[in-house]
Amino acid sequence: MSQRHSGKHPHASKSVLSSLMLPQDANPRGYVFGGSVLKLIDNAAYAAACRHAGTAACVTASFDRVDFTMPIDIGELVILEAQVHFAGHSSMQVGVNVFAENLDTGKRRQTNSCLVTMVAVDAQGRPIGVPPLIPETEEEKRLFKEALERRQKKIKRD
Amino acid sequence: MSQRHSGKHPHASKSVLSSLMLPQDANPRGYVFGGSVLKLIDNAAYAAACRHAGTAACVTASFDRVDFTMPIDIGELVILEAQVHFAGHSSMQVGVNVFAENLDTGKRRQTNSCLVTMVAVDAQGRPIGVPPLIPETEEEKRLFKEALERRQKKIKRD
Amino acid sequence: MSQRHSGKHPHASKSVLSSLMLPQDANPRGYVFGGSVLKLIDNAAYAAACRHAGTAACVTASFDRVDFTMPIDIGELVILEAQVHFAGHSSMQVGVNVFAENLDTGKRRQTNSCLVTMVAVDAQGRPIGVPPLIPETEEEKRLFKEALERRQKKIKRD
Amino acid sequence: MSQRHSGKHPHASKSVLSSLMLPQDANPRGYVFGGSVLKLIDNAAYAAACRHAGTAACVTASFDRVDFTMPIDIGELVILEAQVHFAGHSSMQVGVNVFAENLDTGKRRQTNSCLVTMVAVDAQGRPIGVPPLIPETEEEKRLFKEALERRQKKIKRD
Amino acid sequence: MSQRHSGKHPHASKSVLSSLMLPQDANPRGYVFGGSVLKLIDNAAYAAACRHAGTAACVTASFDRVDFTMPIDIGELVILEAQVHFAGHSSMQVGVNVFAENLDTGKRRQTNSCLVTMVAVDAQGRPIGVPPLIPETEEEKRLFKEALERRQKKIKRD
Amino acid sequence: MSQRHSGKHPHASKSVLSSLMLPQDANPRGYVFGGSVLKLIDNAAYAAACRHAGTAACVTASFDRVDFTMPIDIGELVILEAQVHFAGHSSMQVGVNVFAENLDTGKRRQTNSCLVTMVAVDAQGRPIGVPPLIPETEEEKRLFKEALERRQKKIKRD
Repeated sequence: MSQRHSGKHPHASKSVLSSLMLPQDANPRGYVFGGSVLKLIDNAAYAAACRHAGTAACVTASFDRVDFTMPIDIGELVILEAQVHFAGHSSMQVGVNVFAENLDTGKRRQTNSCLVTMVAVDAQGRPIGVPPLIPETEEEKRLFKEALERRQKKIKRD
Repeated sequence: MSQRHSGKHPHASKSVLSSLMLPQDANPRGYVFGGSVLKLIDNAAYAAACRHAGTAACVTASFDRVDFTMPIDIGELVILEAQVHFAGHSSMQVGVNVFAENLDTGKRRQTNSCLVTMVAVDAQGRPIGVPPLIPETEEEKRLFKEALERRQKKIKRD
Repeated sequence: MSQRHSGKHPHASKSVLSSLMLPQDANPRGYVFGGSVLKLIDNAAYAAACRHAGTAACVTASFDRVDFTMPIDIGELVILEAQVHFAGHSSMQVGVNVFAENLDTGKRRQTNSCLVTMVAVDAQGRPIGVPPLIPETEEEKRLFKEALERRQKKIKRD
Repeated sequence: MSQRHSGKHPHASKSVLSSLMLPQDANPRGYVFGGSVLKLIDNAAYAAACRHAGTAACVTASFDRVDFTMPIDIGELVILEAQVHFAGHSSMQVGVNVFAENLDTGKRRQTNSCLVTMVAVDAQGRPIGVPPLIPETEEEKRLFKEALERRQKKIKRD
Repeated sequence: MSQRHSGKHPHASKSVLSSLMLPQDANPRGYVFGGSVLKLIDNAAYAAACRHAGTAACVTASFDRVDFTMPIDIGELVILEAQVHFAGHSSMQVGVNVFAENLDTGKRRQTNSCLVTMVAVDAQGRPIGVPPLIPETEEEKRLFKEALERRQKKIKRD
Repeated sequence: MSQRHSGKHPHASKSVLSSLMLPQDANPRGYVFGGSVLKLIDNAAYAAACRHAGTAACVTASFDRVDFTMPIDIGELVILEAQVHFAGHSSMQVGVNVFAENLDTGKRRQTNSCLVTMVAVDAQGRPIGVPPLIPETEEEKRLFKEALERRQKKIKRD
């Protein structure tokens, strides 16, 4: 499986998930629970990480801070765009942008963004190697560099 | 709201929904239930119809024949692409293509396709007008023509 | 297991499923999603096919056209009656009638009907033989004949 | 609405609900949770009570003892048969029999039975009158008498 | 595993579960279904029994009578407190108290109580031995004695 | 309602939620999804915030970083302990500790911790005042001070 480690571009991991917000996502007062959004972010990051790693066995290692500045209503379509920004030996930093679209007005707005670290694991749950990430565009190179810096800061801090 | 009826292009309604197939989608032997796929097709058609109609109040009028020739496994990512092919006064024909992607191999295959008719309704459930559909590309024009023919055949048959 | 193939009557497969329509079945405007009804139709067809085939390993092969001419409200009881109309070597045509009952008025109305083709499979997903179907009543013989004709038309078309 | 109180036969309330036991009904070791069965019993009793009372506003007042002597497996079809045995001014005693059917063998066995008391209520949750119950068959008369005795014993005890 | 049978105190099994009542727990008129409460009671009894038995393989053997005298609203927090009252060779009597807390007023009220019998089983579903229960406080001794009496009455009755 | 703003102790908001991890919480390989844990953390923070604020109308404003260093298995009991650490005018910092308990071994381990900011809102979604928080114990005073510092750093940063 040498080709599994020959390097992949960030866009190869791009994953768009979308979901209608239904009554079961609402808190008792009719606001969408932050927790429902976080669950969808985790799903989108999982899909992007699996696509990069070439395996369905990826687990969440951490969620960076998420802000909820704009409420989402029941009946809105939530769209999540996830892409791997940086890949280490077995861990991947995945950026997830969340949008909500009102189907009555057609207006779409960004509601959240989040950085999720996922790790590829084997059947015993031990980390396994993932392909290197090869950023191509200027934007991808910037995201890669920022992710690398966050990672180095974190290693120093720990 | 005259601008609501000024005509829209098919791609404006394009809706991509995607969802991980989880244990609750499996029948007792571990196959994904056809019914789970049909539920997702309905969701995708609903999003496309709402986007074209400019309202979140659309209801399913009919599902055309759906074939299930390829089983989908738990853990696969199901991707649905829906787009309005034809719009009458208040009804819309929506084409939905279903793909399944194996996250271990990265292989994606088309598993189903379906034509769904949706109707825009008011608060009392009565049909309301939707914008005309203006096909642009050759493909869109062909799909429009085919949808129109199906509709005329159906009207004759009824 | 020779007795598994000794022929069964259609009523031996008759399956009645019923379910209360709850808030999670509603679209954002409070109508029951067509997709929720389709999921229940698939469940009922599955039960009837399993009963005829004598195995819990049946998969959906196709759904014929379904019309949704009458909306179903949250709080209504949906009743599905499924029965095998025709059995080939490994495939079965199952007819499903859907009724909705308003528990306030006690009024019941037929909302949909659908023909579903199910296939019995082994552990590797390969088709396996099912018992012949032996129609008894005039109605059963008519349904058998119609199903046979649909099947022959389909084979010619493919 | 004088006709609402003109008396109804027990079989008019008969309600058959059925449901496939899916992975989400299983406890971590793969047994169906007793609680999942109780939830279905409550649903079936609710349907029977609503049918007798002629209103969808019925609430559970009590569940009598339920024994679970036979485990139910994932993939089995659970069938619940509910019927009103006795009606007081606003409360109804509903008998629910639970059966499990193995779809591989076609064998059906009774797994539980339960007596549920339901009360019809108005929009403010206050008890409202329900039609008298008129038992017809010997079996219905016996069930009515037993329910009446349980009720009198309970009133004495309270 | 001799230490598994060396006796445990009731409070070692104490299990507090809590859950927000969400729209999917409501019947069509907005009351929490009795069945939703029973499902939570079963979950709490399961946790307490597993803690006492030292195994996650416990099954529900019976539910004693449950009264529903106080409705629970969507948006309320339901709190369940379960504790083993009595342990026989393989069965355990678990007491479960149910409380509902209104998050607007902070008021908490007891809504139900129930006695659930759970049995520890092996991989084949056969009963296995559980540790003896050693009541300590006066309250625990009283609950133990009452449970023993119920059990002896039941054995005589059967 | 002057008493609503007369100050409350942190322990008055303490909220313990717990939940069995069931098959629907598992990713395709059988690990509990990080997103399922985040949803429960949000639920627990919501309960604590509502208890402090004296209203069920609280919304999530932000989630601080969460690490997932220990996987949680299906069948484990997840226990969440949430308590308000700091209250501003309308926002509250809630600390949530997550524990997983293996019901076979009785072993409990802390798997995550998280700081969640919740805001009390009125019917139009506008922030409303909450009672001051009065820390009592040394631990509570330390948590209050740390939360205040985080808040001041954040205000400076924004």
